Amino acid sequence: MESNYNSSFPKVVIVGAGFGGIELANNLKNKEVDVLLIDKHNYHTFQPLMYQVATGSLEADSIAFSVRKNYEGRKNFRFRIAEVKKINTDKNSIETTVGDIDYDYLVLATGSTTNFFGDKEIEQHALPMKSIPEALNLRSAILQNLETALLMPTQEEREPYLTFVLVGAGPTGVELSGSIAELRNFVLHKDYPELQKSEMKVYLVDFLPKVLSSMSEQASKKAQEFLENMGVEVLTGVKVEKYDGEVISFEGGRKIKTKNVIWSAGVKGIVPEGFSKEQFAKGDRLTTDEINRVKGLNNVFAIGDVSSSVSEAMPKGLPGVAPVAIQQGKHLAKNILHLIKNEPTVNFKYNDQGSMATIGRNKAVVDLGKIKFQGFFAWLTWMFVHLVLLMGFRNKVVVFINWLGSYISYNGGTRLIINPFYKKPVKVADPVPEG
Amino acid sequence: MESNYNSSFPKVVIVGAGFGGIELANNLKNKEVDVLLIDKHNYHTFQPLMYQVATGSLEADSIAFSVRKNYEGRKNFRFRIAEVKKINTDKNSIETTVGDIDYDYLVLATGSTTNFFGDKEIEQHALPMKSIPEALNLRSAILQNLETALLMPTQEEREPYLTFVLVGAGPTGVELSGSIAELRNFVLHKDYPELQKSEMKVYLVDFLPKVLSSMSEQASKKAQEFLENMGVEVLTGVKVEKYDGEVISFEGGRKIKTKNVIWSAGVKGIVPEGFSKEQFAKGDRLTTDEINRVKGLNNVFAIGDVSSSVSEAMPKGLPGVAPVAIQQGKHLAKNILHLIKNEPTVNFKYNDQGSMATIGRNKAVVDLGKIKFQGFFAWLTWMFVHLVLLMGFRNKVVVFINWLGSYISYNGGTRLIINPFYKKPVKVADPVPEG
Repeated sequence: MESNYNSSFPKVVIVGAGFGGIELANNLKNKEVDVLLIDKHNYHTFQPLMYQVATGSLEADSIAFSVRKNYEGRKNFRFRIAEVKKINTDKNSIETTVGDIDYDYLVLATGSTTNFFGDKEIEQHALPMKSIPEALNLRSAILQNLETALLMPTQEEREPYLTFVLVGAGPTGVELSGSIAELRNFVLHKDYPELQKSEMKVYLVDFLPKVLSSMSEQASKKAQEFLENMGVEVLTGVKVEKYDGEVISFEGGRKIKTKNVIWSAGVKGIVPEGFSKEQFAKGDRLTTDEINRVKGLNNVFAIGDVSSSVSEAMPKGLPGVAPVAIQQGKHLAKNILHLIKNEPTVNFKYNDQGSMATIGRNKAVVDLGKIKFQGFFAWLTWMFVHLVLLMGFRNKVVVFINWLGSYISYNGGTRLIINPFYKKPVKVADPVPEG
Repeated sequence: MESNYNSSFPKVVIVGAGFGGIELANNLKNKEVDVLLIDKHNYHTFQPLMYQVATGSLEADSIAFSVRKNYEGRKNFRFRIAEVKKINTDKNSIETTVGDIDYDYLVLATGSTTNFFGDKEIEQHALPMKSIPEALNLRSAILQNLETALLMPTQEEREPYLTFVLVGAGPTGVELSGSIAELRNFVLHKDYPELQKSEMKVYLVDFLPKVLSSMSEQASKKAQEFLENMGVEVLTGVKVEKYDGEVISFEGGRKIKTKNVIWSAGVKGIVPEGFSKEQFAKGDRLTTDEINRVKGLNNVFAIGDVSSSVSEAMPKGLPGVAPVAIQQGKHLAKNILHLIKNEPTVNFKYNDQGSMATIGRNKAVVDLGKIKFQGFFAWLTWMFVHLVLLMGFRNKVVVFINWLGSYISYNGGTRLIINPFYKKPVKVADPVPEG
């Protein structure tokens, strides 16, 4: 039923309204193509600020933007809320929850989800944060455990509810542990005067020897210093062995009693059925060539986190960050138009503009090529960049007001529990595009 | 475990953080009482703007305010997220989901929920809107049905998804039908260019002969005129006979095919177990005397929607609106302090300051005693009053920005579907305090 396109233009189907998919669709505006964008949600998610939703500093709508609103008045464009179940490359068609859809060019921009590296027990008990529903669920878990701690008569019984262990010291783990530490430092005594600050513990764990290992030595060191000053116990070079929902165990024998293990130790690509083993690279990503074409296919592409751009020039591949997806989306738009016109394509080259992470109030680390700085000015830079990148004028205003309010009051956010915490059933596979 | 109060002051337990409960707790500040406030949610809900959450004009956090934040720094005050299961008036104790709690004075401010008047089939299929989770669920239903309509090839198949029937033409039904009509008039062609405005229908139904029957004749007439000008088909004097999820049938034989029946035709009090039949008045409310004391009890009170203040002076009782709950909460605080000091109590007298309803852009009706006005100035009055009453400076600012943005763009709100629509299981009883 989805084959009635508006025009006779080539059909470009984009799966996923993340950074890559949105940028690609934007760059196909007013071109002679018929664009169909698919996502399981009706909004684009600004993932870099998701941790603030999880700790209740921002509401979900501040970092989400309606896809339909973004493409209002756009010609030769359609959007469908759907999940892709299977791709039939031989028939140039995809099977979705809203029926079969034909394509001339297919672009998978489905992103990534949390990688528990096959440990079903950890997957069952640890909390992920790769989508807005997951971030809201994490918030409910954190707040409900504080509420439960209130009901426990002894410190021993309160301990697991007040102990937070973040596994994975990349930007997500660093930002989230900083944010939870600030919840303890600035908010706990106001919202929960019956609880003691000293009873609430925050751990940040990584099996690598340092935090923010993808950033400069300087950034890594300073970030750890900031975290420790805020009262986060940083455990590097430590490997998680087991977590059963009550106790997390590390190699070497150390154990921590906790109800709150938050897992940001890795991601894996979200790929629908229909690809062969040979088309996969490390981390369930699709192997792509220099123009983001999936190995062995002519008209199927993958961009962003779901694509593995390993090449001779880049043996380690590209990092799973927004700028890669954005640049690939923009670049692929041109190449698709070249392919349609039988013109030669241009190879993709990543322009690394640096990276940054915030740790807390007045504390951030920024690497811009050779320029590296940390502290208050880095924090201002971080805020400025994120406000600029955030989609939608209303969202920029609302986030700015929230940040200003938080900065003045030391007590921003609403910390609402709209839906109570639920345990996500653990599935064997999750072939779902992530918005 | 909940008996360890901070002080030897009399224990006042307030169930429900709605308008009445919050006002009562506010007025017991710095008094010689120990206050425990209980609600199933950790936020107070500003119900008058809930319909804007349902249609995606406002986000939930704009009309919700954290209870903990509201009482920061407050002495002799505690808050618990809990549901009250049973009240044991003989033991001065309540059974809750977080354990038993003793009281010296108990105040039920549990509010009301949707009344389906015993029709289980309608309860199963019609959509209620009496809490934030219900409003968000209604939003998901509305938006998902628009999305589904897109997939239907014929007008006949699209019709039930694009037909909205609101049952109950009180303020909620009027405001919601106006809001859905504006969604059609201003947003549909932008967000869903594949759908025709003429295909989307909005009906407002009531078995009474007019809309807003609690307001003046003038307000009622003008509201109906506004609605009809906006394209709402108003069906008064019409009684619903049956709704099976596909077709709604009315007495007299008329039928409308629709997937969207929104039920605001009545409310009933939310009362925990532990009361006898003789203590109930019409609409599952608790019979209360002139000081809001529940019939037959010395130290148990009910205020707001859950209380029926029928008396010789007021044979019809008081309307279930916020000002009644607020005035009763404020008044009861004084009377509880009188009772503690063995002073005479003062009877409650409702000061009716009028009522208002908004229908849409530039359109509202206001009755202030003998002063009645409608249209643009009424609309400004409505907005001003609601901004003033809304709790929290941040909420006021965010709602004002949203309204300003909507007014300028004719296309406010984000219309996010965070959680997909779910059908609520129909229970026999719902003994739950509503925030």
